[in-house]
Amino acid sequence: MLGHADSCLCIDLGAIVANWRYIDSLSAPSTVTAAMVKANGYGLGAAAVAGALAAAGCGEFFVASLDEAIALRQHLDEVGHPEPHIMTLHGCHIGQEEAHAQHRITPVLNDLEQLTRWRLLSQKIAEKLPALLHFDTGMTRLGFDPDQTDWLIQNKAAYDGLVVRYIMSHLVSGEVIGAPITTQQLAAFNELRSWFAGVPASLANSAGSLLPTPYHFQMTRPGIALYGAHPADCPTDKLQPVVRWHARIMQLRRAKAGDRVGYGGTHLLTRESKIATIGVGYADGYDRQLGGKAIVQIGDKHAPVIGRVSMDSITVDVTDLADGDLVSGTADLLHAGYDVPRMAADANTISYEVLTRLGARPARHYLKP
Amino acid sequence: MLGHADSCLCIDLGAIVANWRYIDSLSAPSTVTAAMVKANGYGLGAAAVAGALAAAGCGEFFVASLDEAIALRQHLDEVGHPEPHIMTLHGCHIGQEEAHAQHRITPVLNDLEQLTRWRLLSQKIAEKLPALLHFDTGMTRLGFDPDQTDWLIQNKAAYDGLVVRYIMSHLVSGEVIGAPITTQQLAAFNELRSWFAGVPASLANSAGSLLPTPYHFQMTRPGIALYGAHPADCPTDKLQPVVRWHARIMQLRRAKAGDRVGYGGTHLLTRESKIATIGVGYADGYDRQLGGKAIVQIGDKHAPVIGRVSMDSITVDVTDLADGDLVSGTADLLHAGYDVPRMAADANTISYEVLTRLGARPARHYLKP
Repeated sequence: MLGHADSCLCIDLGAIVANWRYIDSLSAPSTVTAAMVKANGYGLGAAAVAGALAAAGCGEFFVASLDEAIALRQHLDEVGHPEPHIMTLHGCHIGQEEAHAQHRITPVLNDLEQLTRWRLLSQKIAEKLPALLHFDTGMTRLGFDPDQTDWLIQNKAAYDGLVVRYIMSHLVSGEVIGAPITTQQLAAFNELRSWFAGVPASLANSAGSLLPTPYHFQMTRPGIALYGAHPADCPTDKLQPVVRWHARIMQLRRAKAGDRVGYGGTHLLTRESKIATIGVGYADGYDRQLGGKAIVQIGDKHAPVIGRVSMDSITVDVTDLADGDLVSGTADLLHAGYDVPRMAADANTISYEVLTRLGARPARHYLKP
Repeated sequence: MLGHADSCLCIDLGAIVANWRYIDSLSAPSTVTAAMVKANGYGLGAAAVAGALAAAGCGEFFVASLDEAIALRQHLDEVGHPEPHIMTLHGCHIGQEEAHAQHRITPVLNDLEQLTRWRLLSQKIAEKLPALLHFDTGMTRLGFDPDQTDWLIQNKAAYDGLVVRYIMSHLVSGEVIGAPITTQQLAAFNELRSWFAGVPASLANSAGSLLPTPYHFQMTRPGIALYGAHPADCPTDKLQPVVRWHARIMQLRRAKAGDRVGYGGTHLLTRESKIATIGVGYADGYDRQLGGKAIVQIGDKHAPVIGRVSMDSITVDVTDLADGDLVSGTADLLHAGYDVPRMAADANTISYEVLTRLGARPARHYLKP
């Protein structure tokens, strides 16, 4: 499976579909479940992920930028799924109006300026154009701010000619149990909805999708949960793991007590040792902070990563493994005993960053649903 | 320059060529200066970097894996530079022998097993095949270990039929001034050379290239220095900065004292504020640890990144900037006041990881030499 590469990500598209169906089962039948495939499908491949989800019936995909949207539209057209909606969360920037329309991309409009330009195009081409309106209820990041929101409520003619498919907002701390801001945002969003009678609404990211149904409205927008990780990195057996990562054992070597391993000689061997050098490094997205912390699996045995992570390789102490344990010639970097949340904790980050940091160099192998 | 992307890496190929020439000037005229372009040219694009360096006269390129080597060979052939040597640092793994020969890739042989298979192919096709022999002098990572080294010295017929272009080793702590291991490695390597009379030798990575000439031998192999960073992240005006990174200001918004910014609401605004949301996030390689630490440049003013880094965006406090400062519509993430080493320090890592972590999503714009 490695071929000319030194490591390979094995991505279970069936698990992604199963996770999407699980999230979908948590909301009412009338609630649509969209899919976040921005950041190249959280590092796992937006084309493959969206293709599998479209085939499973998902009709709403969110990306960040127009670049991502066009690439996804072209792929979905090629694989015979022209129908799903594709939304750009960053909206429609100056000069991007025609390309949005041409590629059937729906912008999430974040302010009056974006709204005005999108509406102008609608008037120019005499066609009703779709849009989502994003209102900020606490992130202070993207979306209509309170002043613009008030103005828009008083001046609804500002979006005449647009089809507002959804109004939406985004949760600040949806994954934090009992966070007061979450109920405050729900209240603010419900008040907002009262001004947009009949317009569908969407509030829930992955964390919101796991909250009770009052958070679900007409569409949920899960991301990280599709990729098998709980938004708060809590252990869960409801979400199937999606990615395995294995790498070539490039060399096995003997070393003696007193030898030091890797850059800076940070790891001192205290016994006659057997070291496996494995073809993955921080340039592949194997975080440099994992040196001395991570555990790989070889056959059915575990072995610790020792010394510093290099750009292209890591060193593993396999002294306690028998030669027969090493015949596979590969090591699993992500496995049942060391999953994405565990790797994230050892790298001082969250599962989201572990996934989106996966480099272009590892080969991708997709397990079809 | 952004087009449909939300951020763009501006890569100065002329600076890379200048840095290569500077490193080359430090060694004797008879010493060849190779170029490390593994990990996709340290994240900046192996094809563009090697193309520019080949045009400038560089004839030796190192990559990690066969995948990388084949892609580079195909590119160099396409742009009319078929002549440079391309070496795989990870050597020739089982089943990769024919592809190495077919694409004119020279493996760095790291142990007897690799040596034996490469020599067998040489005998099979009745052709002298090139190789480098890598001996470990302290890294305990890749290269012939002491036992195999001793055996090979006694059994030189083991590489009959191969053209050993270089013997090489790799420094553990070349960037640490006065590290005893460095002089120990030099002594060990010189002893090793005495067993391979007439064979060219190579020991120096970027750090070694900056050490006195006894470390240079017949070939130096700089990497990080080509990309404008000192191997110990020391300030230096001898190396030209190579990469700028700018991103779209996606939205400007007002916020009031008491508002909180970003996920978790970690940043509390203490005054009436103006916030710019910028189209780069940790999925682009903008480390999540930079939230609350990094400084961007907008026009000729600096502004702090506040709150958490999101997957696709960051928030910047631009309250102290005048509206006229913001007309460019973009922010510089890497700039003279906040360079790669500074970003690395704030992200608790080294320049190497900052560069190789740069994601696929930012557009690449190359300044030709």
